[in-house]
Amino acid sequence: MLPLHLQPESHIPLYVQLRDQLRALVHSGELRSGDRIPASRELAGQLGVHRTTVANAYAELESEGLIQGHVGRGTFICGAPAKQFSPPPRSNGNGGGMRWEALFADDRGEESLSRMMPNIPPGATAFTVARPPDESFPLEEFRRCSNAVLGHEGRRILQLGSTDGYEPLKRELIGLFRSEGMNVRSEQLLITDGCQQAIDLVCKAFLRPGDSVALENPGYPGAIAILAGARVRPLAVGVEPDVTRTGHVGLDVDALETVLMQNRVKFILITPDFHNPTGTALPVASRRRLLELSARFQVPVVEDGIYARLRLRGNPILSLKALDTAGNVIHVDSFSKTAFPGLRVGWCIGPESAIERLRLVKQSTDLHTDQLSQATMAEFMHRGYFTRHLAKMKKVYRSRLEAMEEALEKHMPEETSWTHPDGGMSLWVTLPAGFDAGELLIHARERGIVFLPGRHFYSQHPRPNTLRLGFSAVDEKRIERGIQTFCDLLKSELRKRQRGARSELPARVALV
Amino acid sequence: MLPLHLQPESHIPLYVQLRDQLRALVHSGELRSGDRIPASRELAGQLGVHRTTVANAYAELESEGLIQGHVGRGTFICGAPAKQFSPPPRSNGNGGGMRWEALFADDRGEESLSRMMPNIPPGATAFTVARPPDESFPLEEFRRCSNAVLGHEGRRILQLGSTDGYEPLKRELIGLFRSEGMNVRSEQLLITDGCQQAIDLVCKAFLRPGDSVALENPGYPGAIAILAGARVRPLAVGVEPDVTRTGHVGLDVDALETVLMQNRVKFILITPDFHNPTGTALPVASRRRLLELSARFQVPVVEDGIYARLRLRGNPILSLKALDTAGNVIHVDSFSKTAFPGLRVGWCIGPESAIERLRLVKQSTDLHTDQLSQATMAEFMHRGYFTRHLAKMKKVYRSRLEAMEEALEKHMPEETSWTHPDGGMSLWVTLPAGFDAGELLIHARERGIVFLPGRHFYSQHPRPNTLRLGFSAVDEKRIERGIQTFCDLLKSELRKRQRGARSELPARVALV
Repeated sequence: MLPLHLQPESHIPLYVQLRDQLRALVHSGELRSGDRIPASRELAGQLGVHRTTVANAYAELESEGLIQGHVGRGTFICGAPAKQFSPPPRSNGNGGGMRWEALFADDRGEESLSRMMPNIPPGATAFTVARPPDESFPLEEFRRCSNAVLGHEGRRILQLGSTDGYEPLKRELIGLFRSEGMNVRSEQLLITDGCQQAIDLVCKAFLRPGDSVALENPGYPGAIAILAGARVRPLAVGVEPDVTRTGHVGLDVDALETVLMQNRVKFILITPDFHNPTGTALPVASRRRLLELSARFQVPVVEDGIYARLRLRGNPILSLKALDTAGNVIHVDSFSKTAFPGLRVGWCIGPESAIERLRLVKQSTDLHTDQLSQATMAEFMHRGYFTRHLAKMKKVYRSRLEAMEEALEKHMPEETSWTHPDGGMSLWVTLPAGFDAGELLIHARERGIVFLPGRHFYSQHPRPNTLRLGFSAVDEKRIERGIQTFCDLLKSELRKRQRGARSELPARVALV
Repeated sequence: MLPLHLQPESHIPLYVQLRDQLRALVHSGELRSGDRIPASRELAGQLGVHRTTVANAYAELESEGLIQGHVGRGTFICGAPAKQFSPPPRSNGNGGGMRWEALFADDRGEESLSRMMPNIPPGATAFTVARPPDESFPLEEFRRCSNAVLGHEGRRILQLGSTDGYEPLKRELIGLFRSEGMNVRSEQLLITDGCQQAIDLVCKAFLRPGDSVALENPGYPGAIAILAGARVRPLAVGVEPDVTRTGHVGLDVDALETVLMQNRVKFILITPDFHNPTGTALPVASRRRLLELSARFQVPVVEDGIYARLRLRGNPILSLKALDTAGNVIHVDSFSKTAFPGLRVGWCIGPESAIERLRLVKQSTDLHTDQLSQATMAEFMHRGYFTRHLAKMKKVYRSRLEAMEEALEKHMPEETSWTHPDGGMSLWVTLPAGFDAGELLIHARERGIVFLPGRHFYSQHPRPNTLRLGFSAVDEKRIERGIQTFCDLLKSELRKRQRGARSELPARVALV
C-alpha cells in the first residue's frame, strides 16, 4: 500500500492532492524508476475515491513524464520527471558537492509562473494567454526604427546608460502621458525592465519580510509570486466579477477598508483597468473612495496600468494616478500588452521622492534597462507607429472579445456565468459550485482546447470553479469553434455529474 | 556658530566630515537658502583645522550646487542641492500627500553608484571609467546582426520569451564555453540582465537580512550596494595588490579561512581574474585552496568572471568554475566589458539545482531578459564578430595598459606604488599614508584629470590613500599627458605636505 492520505474536506481538489503526493513519493525516493503503481480502478478502491480522480492524477503525472503506462503490463514510474515540472533534484549529482537546496534563503512560496501554463498540444486553441498575437507585430516598421537609432545613436545606445532611463524614451512617454491628460516630469518617471520589474522594485523599496500588502483576490500571479518571494503577507481583498453588468464591479472597497483598519498595510496593489484575470474596471466613485482610504490610512497605492490603454468600448475612466492630487499613487506600466512583450521595457510614475528611491534600488538591481529596446521604442513612438499600432490592435481585440461573448452566449450552459470586460485581453468564467476547472482542463486538452484554471490567480481562498479565457491571441473563427467545443464538454460533464449524483457514491464531485 | 563636530581620529577625512555635516544642516533646515556661511579661513580657525580642509569641503558643496560664493559678499547657501547629489527631499511638495521617506523599507546603506562617479569637466581625461570606449563599437556589424535577426526571427524575438534565456544565445554561449575548455549544459546556464542582475539574483535566492557574505576588500561597489540593499553583513577579506610583482597577490586566503571559521557565511563573492579595482589575478594555488575551503566549510563560491576574457598578457589561469569538480561554484558574467555595456545581457553558470532556483527568482523579478539584445548578441557571436572584436579590443587595452605603466614609471614620485595587472581595465594606486585621494581629486579635476578615489571600493576599513586609474577608454597620448599632469600634482602636494609638516600646526595631514 502506498502512503497516501487524501483530505476530502480540503479546498485542494482530490486529484491534485493525489498527484502531488505521488510526485513527492518519487522525489523522496520511496517510489523509484521501474516501480509498478496500482491501476487507477484498484487505487480508487483503496482510497475510496472515484476512479476519475485517480485517472486525472495519473494523466497529469504522465504528461509530466513521471509515469508511463505499458499496455498489458500496468503503469510504472519512469524516473526523473520532465524538466519543466521538476522541483530541484535532491542531489546535484556531481559528487562531493554541497546540497544547494539547503542553502537557499527559503523554499519561496511562489509557484513557478511558467509551470502554471498548461502544455499546449500542437494545433490546440490557446485561450491560456493574454498577450498580443505575434502575427500582428509590425516587423518592418520596427526594423526601420532599430536601424535608424543604431545609425544615429549607436554609440550612445551600446554604451553604459543612465539608471533613470534612456532620455529620448522618457521624452516620448512624457508626451504620451500629456496627450492622455497627465502631466509627468522627468524626475517622476523611471524606466524599468517591464511592469514585472517595476512591481518588484516597489516591493524591494518598501517591504521587509513579514510586512503586509493588500491586493486583489483573484489577482495577477506575477505579483503574488513577487510577494511570496519577498516573504510578504498578501491581504486578499475580493474582486466582484461584473457578471450582471450592473456597473458595481471590481475591488470590494468596503472589504479594503476593513483590511486597512485591521492591519498595518505597506501598500495597496491594484489593477483598476481591465483587471487580470476578471477584466473588470473599477468605477470612478470606487477609485475616489480608494484614494480617500489611501490618504486617511496613509497607505500608498501601487496602480498597475498595463491594460488601461486597451479600452475596447465604453467611456474611459481616469486612472488612479490621474485622480491622485495628493501624490499617493505609484503607477506601473509597460509595452508588453500594447506592443511587444519580448522587449522588457516598462516604467514607474510617482512622486519624486519615491522615484528617487526606486532609482537607487533599480541601480543596484541591474544598473539600467537595456538601451537598444528603449531607443527603438522611443523611435517607434516618435514616428507615430505606436499610436497607429495600438489603434489597429484595439480593433482586433474588440472583434475577438465580441466573438467570444457571442459564442459564450450561444453555447454556455445556464449554470455558468462570465464577465463582460470593456477592455483588456481576457474574461473570467465561473462554473457551477463543486466544479474543478483543473479537472476540466485535462479533458479540454484532449479536445484541443486549453485555458487557465482560476486557482493560479488566488493568493487566498482559491475558487476551483473559476477559469480565465484569453481572447487576444485567437482569431474569431477559432474562438467560435473553441468555445463551442469547450461548452459541449462542459455540458457533458454537467450531465455526468447529474447522473453521478443519482447513481454512484461516493461521488467525485461531492468529495471535491 | 554652526553646530559642527569633527573627529580627527576618525578614518573619515576631515573635509568629508565637514562637507557631510554642512549638507545635513541644509537638509534639516538649520541652514536655509540665503544664509551666509563663514569664510573658509574663519571657519578653519573656529574648528582648529587647516584652511584647505574647509576649502575642500566648500569646493565639493559648491560643485553640488549647495553653496555659492559671491565676490565681495561671502559664501551663501543656495537652496536645494543639484539633482544628482541630492538625497530624497523631506517633503514631496504636492500637499496632503504622505511622507514617502517614512515608508521606505529602510534607508538602504548603499551609496548611489552614480553618485560615486565624479563630474567630468568638458575635455577632462577620464581615468574614472572601466568600460569599453564607444568609438571602438563595430556599429555596422552590430546593425547587420540586429537586422538579420529581426528579419528571420522577429515574431519570436518580440513575443514573450522564456525565463531561461533566448535559446540561440544559450547555444552560442555554450559553444564559447566549450572552446574555452568548459562543458556547460543548457540547464546549467541562465541568461540575466547583465552581471549586476546575476549577482542580485544570487543574493535574492540565498540571503535573508542579517546573513553574512565574505567578499574582497576593496571590491566591486555594485556588489557592496546589493548587499547593503539586502541588509546583509559584508565580511571583508583583504586583497593584496601586486605592487611587487611577486605573484602572491589577490584575495588573502588565510584571512578568508579565519572568516569562515568564525562566521556563518552564506557565500564567498570573488573576482579572481583582474579583480576590480586592483586588477590582480588570483594564482592557481590560491584558487585551489579557496575551493578546498568552500568544500570544507560547505560555503558556495560566487565567481565574477566579467574581466576574465580581458587577459592582455601572461598565461591564462583556469577559472574557479573550471577548477570546480564538486559543483560548488556559481559563475556570473556578461558582455559589458567584452562588447556592449548598454545591452543588459549577462549570465549565471552553476549546478542545475542552483540554476533552477535562480530561474524561479529571475521569473518573478522581470519574467525574462530583453530578447532583441539576446538575439542580436547570438547573431554577433554566430558570425564570429564577437571573437574578432574581443581580439581587437585586447590589443587596444594592452597598448593602453602599457602606456599607463610607462607613464607611471616615468613620472610617479617614489613614495607611491601601483599594481601591474595582466588584464582588465584598471590599475590601483597607493599614495603615501595620510594622503586622501578624495582631496587630491578636487585639485586634479581643476587640472582636467578625474579618477576614482579608492574609498568607494571598500565595504570596511577604507584606505583613503588609494585610487583607481582606468585605462580602457583613454587613448595612449592622453594617458601619457594625463598621468604626467596627475604626477606633477601629486609631487606638488607632496612638497606642500613636507613644507606643511615643518611649518604649520595643526597640520592637515597629521589630523587626517
